Amino acid sequence: MNKVITIGREFGSGGRELGRRIAEALQIDYYDKEILAEIAKHTSMSEEYVQQIMDGKHPQLFPITIGQTFMLTADYHIQQMQSIYGAQSDIIRDLANRSSCVIVGRCANYILRDMNPRRLFVYADIESRVKRCIERNKSAEDLTEKEIRKHILRIDKDRARFYSDYTGQAWGDRLNYDYCINTTNVVIKDIAPIIAQLVNS
Amino acid sequence: MNKVITIGREFGSGGRELGRRIAEALQIDYYDKEILAEIAKHTSMSEEYVQQIMDGKHPQLFPITIGQTFMLTADYHIQQMQSIYGAQSDIIRDLANRSSCVIVGRCANYILRDMNPRRLFVYADIESRVKRCIERNKSAEDLTEKEIRKHILRIDKDRARFYSDYTGQAWGDRLNYDYCINTTNVVIKDIAPIIAQLVNS
Repeated sequence: MNKVITIGREFGSGGRELGRRIAEALQIDYYDKEILAEIAKHTSMSEEYVQQIMDGKHPQLFPITIGQTFMLTADYHIQQMQSIYGAQSDIIRDLANRSSCVIVGRCANYILRDMNPRRLFVYADIESRVKRCIERNKSAEDLTEKEIRKHILRIDKDRARFYSDYTGQAWGDRLNYDYCINTTNVVIKDIAPIIAQLVNS
Repeated sequence: MNKVITIGREFGSGGRELGRRIAEALQIDYYDKEILAEIAKHTSMSEEYVQQIMDGKHPQLFPITIGQTFMLTADYHIQQMQSIYGAQSDIIRDLANRSSCVIVGRCANYILRDMNPRRLFVYADIESRVKRCIERNKSAEDLTEKEIRKHILRIDKDRARFYSDYTGQAWGDRLNYDYCINTTNVVIKDIAPIIAQLVNS
């Protein structure tokens, strides 16, 4: 049986770095944005559009005019959501069946629940997340701390909505995870090898 | 600087066993019910009474009759709560200053917040907690599963109230902990050495 580790994470908490380092420590595959590209390929939608849907946004495709047109737009949107949900589930299950791996985000803890993955949720206080965003992203230098904070909270709200729409569960509810890890003031490379050992036990 | 590990835990989650095993692995002191006895000694109250207060219960000392008597009773009760809160804080700070240790419950994560302890919260789904209660406590055999479940949920509700009254924080809120550990279907002795390594890093 493959060993599968799923990582839910608050934006800016370093969850992706932790996932990558766990995959390195265990010498297993690591999937993050690759899943997005696969979904785009399967559904013939653009990566950007898929990303918007998976970020919990509801992009408006057509101008809303009157009743009939609105209904068509809403139906079309729901169909596309369902295509993305279906592709996401197929791809993640396929990856988990193919080899031992770490999968970041994309409701993988829920999709793979019958495969008994080790499920991590990574979080941190808002100050620490703002700091991490500034450190890792030079483009964030143009934003004020207040703007970065607002951006972080909005992304988390969107993620929570997507997760909840897709799974019917509350995002970040500890019962849906095996270990919740607070990365406030933590150097991720210091804890990654021990977390790898923990999820591999 | 002493290494201090605090453990908050849902009833029946095996948090005490995990704490004891971490203390053994790190060869440091372990405090749980000893704190209760110390508080009783400091306040000249009975251990049973202190336990009731710390379990979030509000024992009724005198029959409530009319206004004045009720006020006296309430004042007396508040005074006793304050004595216990004060003694709890003094004793826990004293223990943490004396040697490296694991402290279970008693809001230690909050009391010692300026000492930067490693703060664990241990939890599990209700079925797993009922099972653990039955396995570890032969006297629970006389109770039905439904009764045990009710007992567990009541104790957690009382703990949450005591924690919240004392700290002003929500009990089990992940931001107040470094690691939250789900012990559903977990053999605690298997993970304890790795958790010990993690909190010692």
